[in-house]
Amino acid sequence: MIPSGFQFAGVRCGLKNKRNDIGLLVSDRPARAAGVLTTNQVRAACVEHTRGVLANHTLQAVVVNSGNANCCTGEQGARDTARMAELAASALGMEAVNVAVASTGVIGQLLNMFKVEQGISDASQKLGVDPRPFMDAILTTDLVEKKAEAQMASGPIVFGVAKGSGMMQPNMATMLAFVATDADASHLDLDAIVKRVADQSFNCMTVDGDTSTNDMFLVLANGASGVQPSELEFETALGEVAISLAKQIARDGEGATKLIEVVVKGSEDPKSIARTIANSPLVKTAMFGCDPNWGRVLMAAGRAGVPFDPGKALLTLTAADEDHVLFANGAPAPFDPKRVSSALKGDYVRIELDLGAGEEATIYTCDFGYGYVRINAEYHT
Amino acid sequence: MIPSGFQFAGVRCGLKNKRNDIGLLVSDRPARAAGVLTTNQVRAACVEHTRGVLANHTLQAVVVNSGNANCCTGEQGARDTARMAELAASALGMEAVNVAVASTGVIGQLLNMFKVEQGISDASQKLGVDPRPFMDAILTTDLVEKKAEAQMASGPIVFGVAKGSGMMQPNMATMLAFVATDADASHLDLDAIVKRVADQSFNCMTVDGDTSTNDMFLVLANGASGVQPSELEFETALGEVAISLAKQIARDGEGATKLIEVVVKGSEDPKSIARTIANSPLVKTAMFGCDPNWGRVLMAAGRAGVPFDPGKALLTLTAADEDHVLFANGAPAPFDPKRVSSALKGDYVRIELDLGAGEEATIYTCDFGYGYVRINAEYHT
Repeated sequence: MIPSGFQFAGVRCGLKNKRNDIGLLVSDRPARAAGVLTTNQVRAACVEHTRGVLANHTLQAVVVNSGNANCCTGEQGARDTARMAELAASALGMEAVNVAVASTGVIGQLLNMFKVEQGISDASQKLGVDPRPFMDAILTTDLVEKKAEAQMASGPIVFGVAKGSGMMQPNMATMLAFVATDADASHLDLDAIVKRVADQSFNCMTVDGDTSTNDMFLVLANGASGVQPSELEFETALGEVAISLAKQIARDGEGATKLIEVVVKGSEDPKSIARTIANSPLVKTAMFGCDPNWGRVLMAAGRAGVPFDPGKALLTLTAADEDHVLFANGAPAPFDPKRVSSALKGDYVRIELDLGAGEEATIYTCDFGYGYVRINAEYHT
Repeated sequence: MIPSGFQFAGVRCGLKNKRNDIGLLVSDRPARAAGVLTTNQVRAACVEHTRGVLANHTLQAVVVNSGNANCCTGEQGARDTARMAELAASALGMEAVNVAVASTGVIGQLLNMFKVEQGISDASQKLGVDPRPFMDAILTTDLVEKKAEAQMASGPIVFGVAKGSGMMQPNMATMLAFVATDADASHLDLDAIVKRVADQSFNCMTVDGDTSTNDMFLVLANGASGVQPSELEFETALGEVAISLAKQIARDGEGATKLIEVVVKGSEDPKSIARTIANSPLVKTAMFGCDPNWGRVLMAAGRAGVPFDPGKALLTLTAADEDHVLFANGAPAPFDPKRVSSALKGDYVRIELDLGAGEEATIYTCDFGYGYVRINAEYHT
């Protein structure tokens, strides 16, 4: 289901060898917009540009290229990003100040603007309601396309696509996510909603702990449905789409064989503990090896810098629809290692660490195997 | 060179299959002692015991077992650790309050105290000046033994041995380091010196970012040389030994092919930036693949949470005695990728990131390859 008033295009202009590399997401009218951009100190030109155009809370199009991140490219890079917005605006008959730009790919190389110009021109001729050419244009080492959709009870549709966080070919793991909805959000504080949703979805996901120079999450609400949903309804639907995309990204991490959901309960800072577990190479390699290694989970939790009493920790692994308690009351619980290991052979595992009274948080990640090393070591700059 | 008044022993009591698993380090007189112990919230019984006996700043012996970390073993574990100190003290004719205990190995299993008792008894009969049986007794997945020595101009000798940080068979990366010196340190603030030295050596080393439940660094100064060195002389020699051990541990990280020295200059918090670079799986896999991937280094630096201006960053790789500038003044520098890649095939690389004016810090780590995944994924609990 595609929300009313949105169109997509994707073409190949030659920045990459095979797949599409220029994409357009276009609304038939200016849409209310908000976004969350990378906090990395090293940021691509498109991040600065898009932060600027978001200042007026309005977007009508997003132009994306893959194959080149246009990062660490200085003033020429900034001019090229601005030019991408101008080219798209001109081809689409809208104002450049309403066009966001996203890039993903190698860093440190100038864009071939001859190709980009041709690509944007071609793409503007191919707009349609099929999002697949656009989805193809934003992918890099992703093995599968990522999309999610939800419908609010009052009618409006939310549709999102994402790429990441496989490593960029060649440089880094960029995450891009674009969500379009035909809800009318003019009565809502969209900035605050998008920030909250990002904190519960993309900011709760980690593949290898690295944050790219180009990460971007944009939401466009064009109001074409004519419906003003409640804040709760809007945020719930947007959250559902964003969490689905985040899980799809984690599951498709480079070399990953499974999605891992790390849930920490009963702490003053459960997110730090869950993130430390989710980023631990020892935990991730154990999951790759289908090893119910509770010691590594506890050890990782213990180094998060958040106090807790290991004597009260309850650790439960859920896999293949079976719950297995591995550690309780300060001591290992009796469990059948072969049975748990067998359950871990599936493509999903939930690690729940309950530390007593307090808050709860969830982090999504993936396991860590030979494929990650292969993809990331065997490329040469 | 072994400092006067120290003896060593190592025997196999059967906690492990092959190598020695009980070690003794003994001084002929009570020695001034200080140590740095793991800050993990989940701590083994021996850590609590040794913290306790260090309170009186005196040790005469260290008893170590490998093959079992005696962690997450509750009150029985604490009793077993106390019993190890008593057994060693009784066999050696000294007070148990002067005996430190260290353990490394699987967690969550009670020690076989029948074997441990036999092992301590045997070891106490085999004391000698050859440290090798002791060094063998503390190793786990280490490929090589780690030792270092230094002599102060005024005469006293400093001798240190270490293990780690290969993953424990099976659970986690424990680092143990024991340093003996015949210097008289009674006039020095040994606690403060040992803490400063640890901060410049073992706390500047990372293999996979994980911190074990059993990490321990102990220094014993027995005064047998009769010489009271200056604080500077003492700290310099101790620092030399500790940094050498830290580098040896990093180089012997599981699956590692090279030692990586990450130096960050010109920042208000260079250690955080250097540590983030050193822990980045993307940087570590690039080094494994001999790929001069400056983008990953900059990206990792940028996510450390410490502000800097990428436009002023100067990134230099040193390998095979060649300096290669990869990035300068906000843009990639011209370099010959094949030549740099070839230089990276050696077993040492220095990554220097100069950000302008400010402090400097160094972190030691290793690369990240298939071997790490193999060792850590293919063990089953």
